Amino acid sequence: MERHFDEELEQLKAKLLKMASLVESIIAKSMESLEERNPELTEKIWDEEDSINMLEIDIDELCHKLLALRQPMAIDLRFITSAMKINNDLERMGDLAVNIVGRTKIILQYPQLKPLNNIPQMAILAQEMVKESLNALVNRDSKIAREICKKDNKVDDINDELFRELLTYMMQNPKNIEAALDLILVARNIERIADHATNIAEDVIYLVEGKTIKHHIEERKGIE
Amino acid sequence: MERHFDEELEQLKAKLLKMASLVESIIAKSMESLEERNPELTEKIWDEEDSINMLEIDIDELCHKLLALRQPMAIDLRFITSAMKINNDLERMGDLAVNIVGRTKIILQYPQLKPLNNIPQMAILAQEMVKESLNALVNRDSKIAREICKKDNKVDDINDELFRELLTYMMQNPKNIEAALDLILVARNIERIADHATNIAEDVIYLVEGKTIKHHIEERKGIE
Repeated sequence: MERHFDEELEQLKAKLLKMASLVESIIAKSMESLEERNPELTEKIWDEEDSINMLEIDIDELCHKLLALRQPMAIDLRFITSAMKINNDLERMGDLAVNIVGRTKIILQYPQLKPLNNIPQMAILAQEMVKESLNALVNRDSKIAREICKKDNKVDDINDELFRELLTYMMQNPKNIEAALDLILVARNIERIADHATNIAEDVIYLVEGKTIKHHIEERKGIE
Repeated sequence: MERHFDEELEQLKAKLLKMASLVESIIAKSMESLEERNPELTEKIWDEEDSINMLEIDIDELCHKLLALRQPMAIDLRFITSAMKINNDLERMGDLAVNIVGRTKIILQYPQLKPLNNIPQMAILAQEMVKESLNALVNRDSKIAREICKKDNKVDDINDELFRELLTYMMQNPKNIEAALDLILVARNIERIADHATNIAEDVIYLVEGKTIKHHIEERKGIE
């Protein structure tokens, strides 16, 4: 049974990595339609969203099966309960990418307001954070996990800067208000994706080091 | 041992109800400073936030203890894993209330833009949803849980209406932009609190009826 259980844990890890790669991909696709200003690209995300939702249920079932049949103790128990939380975070990131696409459909009705630079930059950081947080989990590496928390501050900084910049556009010309507001909301969804990756990183630190950092990590920054 | 386990489950329910009442209270306090335009009131939430954060850790530990020592099966196992998720949702609601207070501090620097009516109205609905979602859990009542999902649509409708109204204020006078934007962000935090309560309600429906509705419930509405 021991060996079989190890195999099941490996299977769980593989499913979580698959889930993370789907999430990275849906984030990338949500940016693609915005950057290329192509409304048709917004349709490309539905298959991805379906896969994420089905995989979430699949992972949750596997975790329950392992808890019920294997009655794991100590570190294995913690790994499985962390997997359940992380699965939840990943699924919500998928929802946030869907929000971005919904918002993009509105944005594409207006002329382009400004070079987008910092929004895709935030999205790339968020994608990296998703990938790295899962690597930190499967390698039980709390050092990588701590780096992710720092990266989150960078995302928050870009978001704050963009917020102020877009506010200026709005004040300069009220015609810019709607488009600028929509960009603010897109950026906010990316920032929330990064927050979920940070939650995962915090769970990994807890799993590896046995201490909760989430309520006393360097204070979370960013406009909320 | 059976009886002891039942007592522990009752203890877990009591702790979750306590957590929910702290969350209701922090939401109420976040509104108080906004409605009374009193920056001193913003300080009143820190004790509440500390209590929520400590109780979250406490509930998480209790769930792990029950999983490890009692090795629960079937419905008891599902109840404990749901409790872990719900605990997480409640803690994040606390964070969102803290965001509202942060935003309120900025809002109070500007003259009042408009009667606030619909923001406190949203907050009251969100508080009700928190209370009812926990009642649904402890009474294993999926009917109440379904009502909560409907109430979430009402919160989204008020939020959409407010969004459009504040957009008009911004267009009429660029001097309103900052204050209006801050109110939009406060409303969005309340809307996210309501979303977390809806997540809890969906977990309860799954627990009671054994089916996942979250990916095919009446489509989530609202500006995101």
